[in-house]
Amino acid sequence: MPDTRIADVRVTPIAFADPPLLNNAGCHQPFALRSIIEVETGDGTVGLGESYGSQPVLKALARVTPHLTGLDVTDLNGLAARCRTHVTGAMDAYTGGERLLPRVIAAIEVACWDAYGKATGRRVCDLLGGQVRQTVPFSAYLFYKFGQHADGTPPDDWGEALTPEGLVEQAARMKALHGFDAIKLKAGVFEPEEEIEGLRALRDTFPEAPLRIDPNGGWSVETTLKLSPQLDGLVEYLEDPTVGIEGNARVQAATDTPLATNMYVVHESHLPPNMARDAFRVILSDHHYWGGLRASRELARICEIWGLGLSMHSNSHLGISLAAMTHLAAATPNLTYDCDTHYPWQSDEVIEGGKLAFTGGCLAVPEGPGLGVTLDRAELARLHRQYLACGITLRDDATEMKKHRPDWSFARPKF
Amino acid sequence: MPDTRIADVRVTPIAFADPPLLNNAGCHQPFALRSIIEVETGDGTVGLGESYGSQPVLKALARVTPHLTGLDVTDLNGLAARCRTHVTGAMDAYTGGERLLPRVIAAIEVACWDAYGKATGRRVCDLLGGQVRQTVPFSAYLFYKFGQHADGTPPDDWGEALTPEGLVEQAARMKALHGFDAIKLKAGVFEPEEEIEGLRALRDTFPEAPLRIDPNGGWSVETTLKLSPQLDGLVEYLEDPTVGIEGNARVQAATDTPLATNMYVVHESHLPPNMARDAFRVILSDHHYWGGLRASRELARICEIWGLGLSMHSNSHLGISLAAMTHLAAATPNLTYDCDTHYPWQSDEVIEGGKLAFTGGCLAVPEGPGLGVTLDRAELARLHRQYLACGITLRDDATEMKKHRPDWSFARPKF
Ligand SMILES: [Mg+2]
Ligand SMILES: [Mg+2]
Repeated sequence: MPDTRIADVRVTPIAFADPPLLNNAGCHQPFALRSIIEVETGDGTVGLGESYGSQPVLKALARVTPHLTGLDVTDLNGLAARCRTHVTGAMDAYTGGERLLPRVIAAIEVACWDAYGKATGRRVCDLLGGQVRQTVPFSAYLFYKFGQHADGTPPDDWGEALTPEGLVEQAARMKALHGFDAIKLKAGVFEPEEEIEGLRALRDTFPEAPLRIDPNGGWSVETTLKLSPQLDGLVEYLEDPTVGIEGNARVQAATDTPLATNMYVVHESHLPPNMARDAFRVILSDHHYWGGLRASRELARICEIWGLGLSMHSNSHLGISLAAMTHLAAATPNLTYDCDTHYPWQSDEVIEGGKLAFTGGCLAVPEGPGLGVTLDRAELARLHRQYLACGITLRDDATEMKKHRPDWSFARPKF
Repeated sequence: MPDTRIADVRVTPIAFADPPLLNNAGCHQPFALRSIIEVETGDGTVGLGESYGSQPVLKALARVTPHLTGLDVTDLNGLAARCRTHVTGAMDAYTGGERLLPRVIAAIEVACWDAYGKATGRRVCDLLGGQVRQTVPFSAYLFYKFGQHADGTPPDDWGEALTPEGLVEQAARMKALHGFDAIKLKAGVFEPEEEIEGLRALRDTFPEAPLRIDPNGGWSVETTLKLSPQLDGLVEYLEDPTVGIEGNARVQAATDTPLATNMYVVHESHLPPNMARDAFRVILSDHHYWGGLRASRELARICEIWGLGLSMHSNSHLGISLAAMTHLAAATPNLTYDCDTHYPWQSDEVIEGGKLAFTGGCLAVPEGPGLGVTLDRAELARLHRQYLACGITLRDDATEMKKHRPDWSFARPKF
């Protein structure tokens, strides 16, 4: 039996190039942050994880990692207990205290699954209960975007997209490159009627594509109730249209279009009130903040039992996260909608072999034991230098937006 | 990597001696039925499971087992899918159709975990997420009982217990033999006031022992509401006092004593209505009917998230079930009450080394990989012959009771 006890845990913050994508909170900065986690076991196996790179998560990880030595990578209960002990005190305002603990657990847990799989010759999807689909479907994630960052960083090759025509062009390219079926529009940026016009242009051009719109809580309850008849039949779900469980419950009571969320049911404590209020009927799960792969499988079972739909949320991420998402989705029977991913917006990569490739909008489970990906150490070093050089330690879309539009101000709901 | 694909599945029905224990449904027959499941993998590892031995479960298992060859023992999603396909049609009135499927899955799933653990040198509690307690606490399970079976089978050495004094004597012996702390009284047999008198006698003799009473739905809502003030402060929980989620919700609304159940929240579909109605605040989980060890871990998480208490239900069982219950409980952080077990009432055994031993009311996780128990094939053969000889194929406590008390009739609620 291989020695699967943790001998060392390394966390490397990285920064990768990110385009000026718009959302209700502002504009993406020139670099997105991430952390790469390496869990090394007694027999020298290295398991990989990828998580948030913002300062509070890095600090919390730094508090925990010295205390993990000797823990078996299968001892997820022990991992949770040690994280609970050592994260307490590192809690701060970044995510709300309760949200930091599952993020720290998840960051390490994924690397533990990878190490366990690599040490025993099994794939993570097999360890999570068995593969139920050969490939995992993802959606085309459309953003309104500027043509260039405010600081003059050379423009990406996607160009500006601020109109319905720009969105259609973006979708056409995204579909041509990756073959995605469903299309998601990040909204809450412009007047809602304008964004719905964008959706209609997408519907006209791609009559068969399931559509979604995500205003990130940017619309008031009244605005949403007024707009919702226009969305019925147009979108497969309406994502976080307004703020909070109570406000969205009022919307859900008025429409048969399911509401989806990755903003207001993001912690286990939100599940009972959501079920009691029938606020959201689709959970966009995310193993990075739900506590890891095991917790996400449990969340999926809860969705199944309560009759909720299930899909997957994404932040800007690289290939280790994508591999973990793919293994998880491959082992989740009740994945009822195509997963979201920001992956096509990123050109940097930390895994050997470069970017993972979608075929027909789907990703095959990477071959090989564990997550099936290995670290490109040269790229890791380069992206870490980029992290040190860029000076960003916290995501701040609002400040970035003001560099483009000095009069812009954040509001949620805004419209 | 060991070949952990299923090569063969064997199911052996057995019968073991059972005392004439009373409950709301009647009296235990001279023999209790069980099935012993052996999952043999490609590398010759044999994983063990123990489940129900009644005809409908045996029939359903027989339909499924020929279709499991080639499935990896880690592929629990695949196991569920194959069981779903092949159990359909074997459904009948025994448990209600929906309840047969998770029983069949569980019977095989436990043996898969054992095989996986034995093949890879890991304990089942480690595979289930990690051991959180060194030993698992069980409760003293008291029954009203006759001194002898109606058919003249030689009497067991526990003697008759039909009075408060008989219960106190039984509890004293059970505690002396095994060291249990909590005491559970199987009730719904006699007039409720008489049974509560029994509880009071137990309280007088064992002032520190947490007490429970389980009328098995034998009391009407009105009776329960009338009696409940007498039970407040006397019991740690009141188990299935009356029938159904709605009736018990009316009781729970009137008392701070938590209601517990192993009768009305016994399937995933019962969870949402239970949470919506606040009927039961403690779930007595049972991996044998909840779909196995993984499903039971998921149930535990649901209890944790919704703030429900958690303990463990038992039927008459032998050591393989006890080992599985112990591994599961050892890997479940939020086990909030001592587990139930009928184990002290059984003298027969199918595992090598004979009966597992409680120390201070607790059981240590059996040593060794998997469940840590191995099959005594001579005893298995003897108990199988006993099964063939006894002629019982279905548990029928009511008919048995009428042999003792011809005027007895079943009613639920009865009082
Ligand atoms: Mg969203
Ligand atoms: Mg009971």
